[in-house]
Amino acid sequence: MKLTFLGSGNVATHLSRALHAAGHDIVQIFSRTDTHASQLATIIGAEPITSVADIDTSADCYIYCLRDEVLQDFIRLMPPLPNAVHLHTAGSMPLDIFAGCQEHYGVLYPMQTFSKDAIVDFCHLPIFVEAHDQLALEWAMTMARQLSDNVHSVNSEQRERLHVAAVFACNFTNHMYAQCQRILAEAGLPFEVMLPLIDVTAQKVHKLPPTQAQTGPAARHDTKIIAKHINMLSDKTQKQIYELISNSIIEGQKK
Amino acid sequence: MKLTFLGSGNVATHLSRALHAAGHDIVQIFSRTDTHASQLATIIGAEPITSVADIDTSADCYIYCLRDEVLQDFIRLMPPLPNAVHLHTAGSMPLDIFAGCQEHYGVLYPMQTFSKDAIVDFCHLPIFVEAHDQLALEWAMTMARQLSDNVHSVNSEQRERLHVAAVFACNFTNHMYAQCQRILAEAGLPFEVMLPLIDVTAQKVHKLPPTQAQTGPAARHDTKIIAKHINMLSDKTQKQIYELISNSIIEGQKK
Repeated sequence: MKLTFLGSGNVATHLSRALHAAGHDIVQIFSRTDTHASQLATIIGAEPITSVADIDTSADCYIYCLRDEVLQDFIRLMPPLPNAVHLHTAGSMPLDIFAGCQEHYGVLYPMQTFSKDAIVDFCHLPIFVEAHDQLALEWAMTMARQLSDNVHSVNSEQRERLHVAAVFACNFTNHMYAQCQRILAEAGLPFEVMLPLIDVTAQKVHKLPPTQAQTGPAARHDTKIIAKHINMLSDKTQKQIYELISNSIIEGQKK
Repeated sequence: MKLTFLGSGNVATHLSRALHAAGHDIVQIFSRTDTHASQLATIIGAEPITSVADIDTSADCYIYCLRDEVLQDFIRLMPPLPNAVHLHTAGSMPLDIFAGCQEHYGVLYPMQTFSKDAIVDFCHLPIFVEAHDQLALEWAMTMARQLSDNVHSVNSEQRERLHVAAVFACNFTNHMYAQCQRILAEAGLPFEVMLPLIDVTAQKVHKLPPTQAQTGPAARHDTKIIAKHINMLSDKTQKQIYELISNSIIEGQKK
């Protein structure tokens, strides 16, 4: 089928390449920046465009991979294309952002942390699908299942909660690694010594629920070590994080 | 060589099994609880004992795997054994806890999150060694290198900072997973959908320093989504964690 991508960032790059590899014809890549549109378009044999006026209106599906801040305005700029399916890929944006603008619309949310250079394996990637109507649901489901064996149908509220949960599991987790990196650097130790522990911590929750996998001074209610650690940290924000999360671990065990 | 383990918890279990497998003779396992001492002693062909008076004073090395709260008192209870090497395995306890009690002493700190049932692969496990004297250093280094290719010599201050860094990388990270689990449960979604994202987040810092790997609303300074997420969370502590860590990510990018 003929697909057009609106956007050329991390999500557009990985998703368009994967759908191209799955046999779809990517007709156009839109980006405000000429070089971005051209770079991606070249890889997948599409036409790069930088103006909404140049959009080919004959595609079967338009996939919007744009930053949350510009998504709504961009949808309003698009011509009504009532025969096509329109899908956005954002975790946090509602489904009805398309309401009044298009006929058939939905969401295809691949839940992953994308960076341009890292190869993304879509095979088992959780993809969350939501749709306003039957045609959009069919399209979104078909494409999601061509990419992954881990496809879920959700509503907007569930998708929003998924997004906030993902912030904890990915972004906040990575920030814990960053704090660890800073503390080690202050002690003249390389971050790499922590990688086996980081890996086992992630592997452990494949077998045990995280509430049961919890270890450490707070899980043991070891207030002496907690006080000593807080005292040892040089950064005020690190002290606050240590205290708040330790208290939260202790609180969580009472539930 | 003849080793005696003082303690029968997670660290004693994994370490004694690994040193037994490496060819050492584990002569005794001490535990206050008879069944704990017996369980572990049976596996590795040692004698279980529950009283300090029964300790065989002819071992070459005594390995103390006791909770931080009881370690110091226990060391004071031990008879002086000036020909043997005495090693504790705690991340947070100083080296000189042995001073005045024994002649040859040191620390063998395997940095990992141990649970009794999970198999621990010592091959690449970071082990941190510290010693008061040459004999203790040789013993600790020899045993550490028999277990792992990832052995580091550190001082007490570095080891203490390692421990606090490990709390961030493991315990606090796991608590982020626990928050994620709670948010997903409230939305009627299984925790398993988050595992691919958790894995990629951990894999990413093998290639990129965590400060560079940071993604998400805070890294993008997306204050609208941050405010929306905080508003969406039902738990007061979760709201505080979201706010504090988001601010810390934003702060960290200015450094």
